[in-house]
Amino acid sequence: MNIAIVGMGLIGGSLARDLKSQINVKVVGVDANEAHQQLSMELGLVDEMVDLDRAIRQSQVIVLAIPVDAIEKLLPELLNKIGDDQVITDVGSTKEFICQAVDNHPRRSRYVAAHPLAGTEYSGPNAAISHLFVGKKNIICEKDKSAEDALDLVERIFRSVGLTNLYMHPSDHDKHLAYVSHLSHVSSFMLGMTVLDIEKDESQIFNLASTGFASTVRLAKSNPKTWSAIFAKNNEHLSTALGSYIDYLQKFKKAIDDKDLLMTEALMIEANDIKKILS
Amino acid sequence: MNIAIVGMGLIGGSLARDLKSQINVKVVGVDANEAHQQLSMELGLVDEMVDLDRAIRQSQVIVLAIPVDAIEKLLPELLNKIGDDQVITDVGSTKEFICQAVDNHPRRSRYVAAHPLAGTEYSGPNAAISHLFVGKKNIICEKDKSAEDALDLVERIFRSVGLTNLYMHPSDHDKHLAYVSHLSHVSSFMLGMTVLDIEKDESQIFNLASTGFASTVRLAKSNPKTWSAIFAKNNEHLSTALGSYIDYLQKFKKAIDDKDLLMTEALMIEANDIKKILS
Repeated sequence: MNIAIVGMGLIGGSLARDLKSQINVKVVGVDANEAHQQLSMELGLVDEMVDLDRAIRQSQVIVLAIPVDAIEKLLPELLNKIGDDQVITDVGSTKEFICQAVDNHPRRSRYVAAHPLAGTEYSGPNAAISHLFVGKKNIICEKDKSAEDALDLVERIFRSVGLTNLYMHPSDHDKHLAYVSHLSHVSSFMLGMTVLDIEKDESQIFNLASTGFASTVRLAKSNPKTWSAIFAKNNEHLSTALGSYIDYLQKFKKAIDDKDLLMTEALMIEANDIKKILS
Repeated sequence: MNIAIVGMGLIGGSLARDLKSQINVKVVGVDANEAHQQLSMELGLVDEMVDLDRAIRQSQVIVLAIPVDAIEKLLPELLNKIGDDQVITDVGSTKEFICQAVDNHPRRSRYVAAHPLAGTEYSGPNAAISHLFVGKKNIICEKDKSAEDALDLVERIFRSVGLTNLYMHPSDHDKHLAYVSHLSHVSSFMLGMTVLDIEKDESQIFNLASTGFASTVRLAKSNPKTWSAIFAKNNEHLSTALGSYIDYLQKFKKAIDDKDLLMTEALMIEANDIKKILS
């Protein structure tokens, strides 16, 4: 089977790497960036780098692994170009706008809306790693709008790299992800800003930064272009989540300013419940 | 040499474990909690659990590994009780109030103010692990106020478990730690609260929580009692840091609400500079 991966970044590249290692799979890559084309070949992520038109002509499955705004724009055009034996899926971190963009498309059934929940803070072809998806979840949205054969094939592909498929409404997906992924990124990015801003003596930060800080600020290394598109496409849910987060921080700050130890401790005891959720 | 560790938690227990493994070191533990006393013996963290008075009588070095408010209270009393051949040090995460509490103490020179920058989100004797301190930094404050022999001995002890000793003014220590440690903890604790609060369907969080979220919220599992004491003793620096963090989050929220992609991207590009600091 020929599978085209459009976008040789962290997710596209990692997916390409795992799929290429399977027997009877040929992976063709597409990337607008010439340096990324060359790097993807050098790193052995793909069997071949081709242009988009050729990738569409010669692939049974096309995986869109580009920023979410680009998926929203490209997906309807690509659906116009593919045949009834071809399938398009994506790995975009927001689903509502993407699903809406093709909701009335005559070929909607050849698309499977997906989001494998995996990643690191790195980006580009160099960030592509093997087995990134093992043990992780893949969210599929509006599965009833996909043709049975298309859904089956896409599910098998994601399962083959170690993902478990789950099903969710696009707006539920976007709301949940705002809290358990997008908000974490904003929280990290702004933590990075705060520390960079105040601590002009960078060598001191370096000396004092503990593993706790490194863990909390890790996501601030993520790709700004990828994440600005995600935040823009999920801005309502994210704004609500961020508003709630700011409210809690203000409540905590007031307790600190008031030297109200009982309140700071009570809030932290409540937050400890996260242990029950994340083992 | 006999070393007493007062407080068999994450830091005290880990330090006890590493020191006990050295030849010619006998570690005696002290803990007010009976279950922790028993557990420390069962886990083999110490050679013996004794009461505080006995620990002081029979130890050359006494390490205070209890909450910072308890250190501040206990340290002056203990200095009154020890001889000229004994040394007290501590591992408290704030240094200014502790140093002030003994600044005019006639036996100040027998105390070495220290803070090994290491830890995990776990607490109690069960959290004690070997080699926790390897490759980490230990901050020593006001080294000129310690007797030469006391400083030398404490430095050797911390070096022996893998720490590198650095020197810093107590207020600089507290200010820096507010940014690179205490703020991270608040940020994590309140992120945990936000997600717990909104996502009543906990199984959904569990299904969707990615490694990024887990990393960002990890510190929310930390011990509320330990951290409420730290926050109270560093409340001015932490309040400033937290205020700055909230300002950045509000700026980011406004950019999201305004759909100002250029601004969100610009802020994230700036935050990416954290890469240069944390490799």
